[in-house]
Amino acid sequence: MKNIYTPLVFALLMISGISSAQDKIEFNEDSTFIRAIFDEALVRGEAYENLRSLCKDVGPRLTGSASAEVAIHWGVQRLQNYGFDTVYKQEIQVPHWERGTTEQGWFKTPEGELNKVNLLALGGSIGTEGVLESEIIMFKDRDALLAADQSEIEGKIVFIAQPMNQKLINTFRAYGGCYPVRGHGAADAGKKGAVGVIIRSLSISEHEHAHTGTMRYEDGVTKIPAAAISTKDATKLEKMITESDEPFRFVMEMDCQKYPDMTSYNVIAEIKGAENPEQIITVGGHLDSWDVGEGAHDDGAGIVHSMEALRILKELNYQPKNTLRVVFFMNEENGNKGGKSYAKYAKESGQKHIAAIESDRGGFAPRGFDVDGSSEHLELLQSFTKLLKPYYLHHFEKGYGGVDIGPLKDEFDSIALYGFVPDSQRYFDFHHNHNDVFENVNKRELHMGAGSICSLIYLLDKYL
Amino acid sequence: MKNIYTPLVFALLMISGISSAQDKIEFNEDSTFIRAIFDEALVRGEAYENLRSLCKDVGPRLTGSASAEVAIHWGVQRLQNYGFDTVYKQEIQVPHWERGTTEQGWFKTPEGELNKVNLLALGGSIGTEGVLESEIIMFKDRDALLAADQSEIEGKIVFIAQPMNQKLINTFRAYGGCYPVRGHGAADAGKKGAVGVIIRSLSISEHEHAHTGTMRYEDGVTKIPAAAISTKDATKLEKMITESDEPFRFVMEMDCQKYPDMTSYNVIAEIKGAENPEQIITVGGHLDSWDVGEGAHDDGAGIVHSMEALRILKELNYQPKNTLRVVFFMNEENGNKGGKSYAKYAKESGQKHIAAIESDRGGFAPRGFDVDGSSEHLELLQSFTKLLKPYYLHHFEKGYGGVDIGPLKDEFDSIALYGFVPDSQRYFDFHHNHNDVFENVNKRELHMGAGSICSLIYLLDKYL
Repeated sequence: MKNIYTPLVFALLMISGISSAQDKIEFNEDSTFIRAIFDEALVRGEAYENLRSLCKDVGPRLTGSASAEVAIHWGVQRLQNYGFDTVYKQEIQVPHWERGTTEQGWFKTPEGELNKVNLLALGGSIGTEGVLESEIIMFKDRDALLAADQSEIEGKIVFIAQPMNQKLINTFRAYGGCYPVRGHGAADAGKKGAVGVIIRSLSISEHEHAHTGTMRYEDGVTKIPAAAISTKDATKLEKMITESDEPFRFVMEMDCQKYPDMTSYNVIAEIKGAENPEQIITVGGHLDSWDVGEGAHDDGAGIVHSMEALRILKELNYQPKNTLRVVFFMNEENGNKGGKSYAKYAKESGQKHIAAIESDRGGFAPRGFDVDGSSEHLELLQSFTKLLKPYYLHHFEKGYGGVDIGPLKDEFDSIALYGFVPDSQRYFDFHHNHNDVFENVNKRELHMGAGSICSLIYLLDKYL
Repeated sequence: MKNIYTPLVFALLMISGISSAQDKIEFNEDSTFIRAIFDEALVRGEAYENLRSLCKDVGPRLTGSASAEVAIHWGVQRLQNYGFDTVYKQEIQVPHWERGTTEQGWFKTPEGELNKVNLLALGGSIGTEGVLESEIIMFKDRDALLAADQSEIEGKIVFIAQPMNQKLINTFRAYGGCYPVRGHGAADAGKKGAVGVIIRSLSISEHEHAHTGTMRYEDGVTKIPAAAISTKDATKLEKMITESDEPFRFVMEMDCQKYPDMTSYNVIAEIKGAENPEQIITVGGHLDSWDVGEGAHDDGAGIVHSMEALRILKELNYQPKNTLRVVFFMNEENGNKGGKSYAKYAKESGQKHIAAIESDRGGFAPRGFDVDGSSEHLELLQSFTKLLKPYYLHHFEKGYGGVDIGPLKDEFDSIALYGFVPDSQRYFDFHHNHNDVFENVNKRELHMGAGSICSLIYLLDKYL
């Protein structure tokens, strides 16, 4: 009998393990409240109208730009209008880079025919100081570039044709795989004497718009201009180079440049906690965006999600145990000065952060949440499954919180970071390009996201 | 001790119950094969290009129209080109209704001001025989109309303002709630002497396009013209009527009409089973669509999903145990003659159907499958959870198969029907209106759906 009962007891222990977190849940009370949250989000939700205003009344808002200043003003006003307990700005120092007014590129066939491509300078790139023209040397991916001899590359413009891996179901993994191409391509190529670098845009689909994004130079390495060309142009160029024995040339002109660092702000608002006002649960997204499109999915969605989550709780007269705080972070795209400064400020002013939630993966239909925390944090999150499944939230996994909230982890040992996970299939059609506009956000999907994030805040406030 | 061990044994029995289906699964082999299915769907998938062709080369394809004939030809050719074992047409009799060339409507304020509305005749409606004008009587929903006195309604045009319920997370439930408004509104109003009926379009979002869809008259009830106006127009009209003490009038002109029934076809292709060729697993969608838009999500997606699922299995050299059949059903939208005739034909010709899968909820990111079958069928479906979760498929529930495959249930006692469940948040923005075009389908989402359906066919063929 012992042989039978050993697995039996083990099974029971496993069940108990799972149910210990679940036992805490007041299922009826919580499911009623979460239903009220989604009713408010879906029937009287304001996230979509807030997003329209951020995209259309403010527009794209690159760190250091005039419109980023306007966005800060916009954020303060909207948060004040909602009547939160406190609304204030946290001063930070941020980088300042501008795209300029000239930005164009062509590839030239061996026969001398010029083909215009859609091109965007990568954020942080130097300009070309007039027209830059040179022979193209193509590499299928970054590894091939890293393995190549300096002699092959010297004086040429490097073209890295590496595509995002379409097989990966989570498209953020595919993005992660190409991230070093964009971030380090210029340094990799510059080290070997290249005079410029162009990359295939980090997009999963094939279309005519180029995708920008941040890049970094390395100390001691000659800085060279860096740009992305559209996936459609990249495919065409790659095919033509592959089929030809003669060299192709690239012609580019960009007058982007870096300016001195300047002052900017994170925008903060909160609802004071009734029981543990000194304990803070933060929810946020980033207020800055790239300077093309309108930063609708990236990360207007996160801004309006976060604001809406607190608005709903206030509207429903919810009295939080802990202080609930919304933060509109500045400068996620090209420096993360907002996130880093916020974590430092929180630590130095002794504000104990117990959890932080970030929405920075777009305004698509919600799938669930990632948690970056202890196994107890994961267990607690998974104990919400039954409550959240009616809203088609099924994904509760160990994972990544977000760029802005990431630095909090270094300052608060026991904090849990939660990343909102919407469906990722369409994200890289819109990311960092001209398509990231309000019209490409669906109202119901956006409002489902706000309801999901609001529900998680409610549950964490109650059970964490 | 007994008190402790009773729940223990119960717990063990529950675990065994779940694992009995799971125990059959060859996890490593299946997960490798399903990975290959998704690789093929995502990297070399042809569903998107097939959909482009169906939408652009054929276009909208209402039953009985010339383009429906072209669609049948298109279907036969595509299936033949894929080299399936047999490709043939099943002759059926179908209704034939045409929208005509004139279709317009205005509401007239008490001051006599005319406001043009976007209006679509409901499928099956009679025309107005010239201009129809009468006083409007508005009802907030169908129940209010059913409760009203004949004397209030006689000689008037009934406006049913009932909106879809935004609180419902599954938008198909919200659609179901309004379906009788569209289907029976004309009969309900006609019984009480109305001369026409207009309804608020069955859409979850507020926009300028009207949504058509089928309606039915009742024997012995006077037939009156029936149309849907856009949700934007409906909201405006409802508000103005509510705020006014004076009566509004409605002016409409439609020359739609019904023609005699005619001959059409379902299109069928199959891959013969190696072990049980007499047992059939059918997968399908409907080839007909409404005559506005391009029938991209409804149900071009289902057509290309089904074809792609079999193409992938063939491409991967999969030898099915059972015969796998793809059916392009005709006339789902206004009669379901294709589905009914297919079930009858299958039964009469002694073709044993063990399972049928339908894709008719759009080409959005997959969530999972509904099953309409026994508890063993549900248990088997749920035993696939671990295999399908990596592809973000989490929904495996008792539910609805589909309109086209529904009649098979009456003919085959032990059949299981499976409905493909993509995310439903955007569906009713596009359903039955001018927005249901190829451009509103996302390639990755469509191809994820094809991979999901293909994987289910593989698993059912192996384990059912």
